[in-house]
Amino acid sequence: MIIFSERINGMYRDVRGAIAEKDKSVVHELLRAQLAGGADVIDINIGPTKGDAAENFLWLAQTVHELSDKPISLDSAKPNLLAEVVPRVRQTLPGARLVINSCTAAADYVDKLIPLAARHQTGLVGLTMDQEGVPGNVEKRVECGATVLMAAIEAGIAVEDIYLDPIVLPINVAAKQPSNVLEAIRQLAAVNDPPPHFIVGLSNISQKCPMHRMLNRTYLVMCLAAGLDAAIMDAADQDLVEAMISAEVLLGKHLYSDDYVKAWRMQKGL
Amino acid sequence: MIIFSERINGMYRDVRGAIAEKDKSVVHELLRAQLAGGADVIDINIGPTKGDAAENFLWLAQTVHELSDKPISLDSAKPNLLAEVVPRVRQTLPGARLVINSCTAAADYVDKLIPLAARHQTGLVGLTMDQEGVPGNVEKRVECGATVLMAAIEAGIAVEDIYLDPIVLPINVAAKQPSNVLEAIRQLAAVNDPPPHFIVGLSNISQKCPMHRMLNRTYLVMCLAAGLDAAIMDAADQDLVEAMISAEVLLGKHLYSDDYVKAWRMQKGL
Repeated sequence: MIIFSERINGMYRDVRGAIAEKDKSVVHELLRAQLAGGADVIDINIGPTKGDAAENFLWLAQTVHELSDKPISLDSAKPNLLAEVVPRVRQTLPGARLVINSCTAAADYVDKLIPLAARHQTGLVGLTMDQEGVPGNVEKRVECGATVLMAAIEAGIAVEDIYLDPIVLPINVAAKQPSNVLEAIRQLAAVNDPPPHFIVGLSNISQKCPMHRMLNRTYLVMCLAAGLDAAIMDAADQDLVEAMISAEVLLGKHLYSDDYVKAWRMQKGL
Repeated sequence: MIIFSERINGMYRDVRGAIAEKDKSVVHELLRAQLAGGADVIDINIGPTKGDAAENFLWLAQTVHELSDKPISLDSAKPNLLAEVVPRVRQTLPGARLVINSCTAAADYVDKLIPLAARHQTGLVGLTMDQEGVPGNVEKRVECGATVLMAAIEAGIAVEDIYLDPIVLPINVAAKQPSNVLEAIRQLAAVNDPPPHFIVGLSNISQKCPMHRMLNRTYLVMCLAAGLDAAIMDAADQDLVEAMISAEVLLGKHLYSDDYVKAWRMQKGL
């Protein structure tokens, strides 16, 4: 599985403070923990930080890249901000591998972000929603996912650089949505061969839930069984990572050995 | 989910000893722990106990029934033993709810055990295998499952009293089989409406594996996402039960509340 680390996000107060004060040490400390846990891609999001958003984003990307050459996922719901930031990050860090996160199926996103990803040779996270918001059913999720997928493929983005995100909502506000997400993954995995990657923003499932860690790891295992192969998640949550490895062993994606967790870590050079 | 407790089994030395010495206290203590954990059905298996097998089976059923009126699952791979024991248990414990566990798709099982279940109004666990053994692929599992299911329905057994068991093998000897079991559940759930129950002998997945508890709970969650609604499992393993409840909440089978584990226990009167 491809682990996108979730922690370098201005939604967290410590990261927000670090961005405001340009304090690299906070970011590096969080990043080290995510890398030690097995992060493959570093998702960065400036959140509601004050000041020049593009400058803050660029600073955060540079700060991460100083410590690690893992791919960086530039995470924002604002297409105009991504359109400004991607070329600047590409210019400042010419060798960095980048992912644009994210593009909905709405025309203004597709028309702006897919050519941007193609031009700058980045990966792309496509959300299964459009201008009308997050679909309440499976069918519309599949339709939106297929829209982004086809537009990206037609623009020349390789299918292995495309991640479809069926949009996880919190269990405490949308009880039927977790099942819909599982079914959307299954159906979208069947409509294209080879399939793209499937990714979720895992912690959304348990927002403001007291038993959030158990909900996160349980839902991750369910998503993996449905065909998920990537997640934005806390790579420093060891129980979560071990549940993930166990699920992958049970799906036949890693050979079983009596200490398969250790084998996984060794294979990743951890 | 319907929890069949797995612990009253002569494969365990303490139970084997209790049967040999007709020591009810050992059985009752194990049973209390399973009931406290949420067991719905008490699976009993005499294992390789010495002496008169039918007598031992009857003693074990009586001993369990003394403490609890939960349904008893009479678990044996020997159809002749089941054919002898079921009428005697029915006569001795006329009010007890019983399940025959298990019947394969082989003719000598089907011809003997399905009329027995119909005559004595018991539930039935059907294994997705036949005289050739456990299938190495999904298709044969589905074929065997459908064979038992149709024979049972034609004999007048209600579909809600039928449990199909797609046969879990240990991950350390059969790496692709856990995925096949998941797919067999999905396919069998689609061939009959309403579907029967789906059950697994959960601990088989991790036989002789050091990280058996993690493997058990991870695989249970995966099976639930595929459509499983029953398992022979250790109801006294609290982490396992909590993973199960979490998965059911995420599948929309229980309402979410901030302490959904407590809510589940209260609803069961625990």
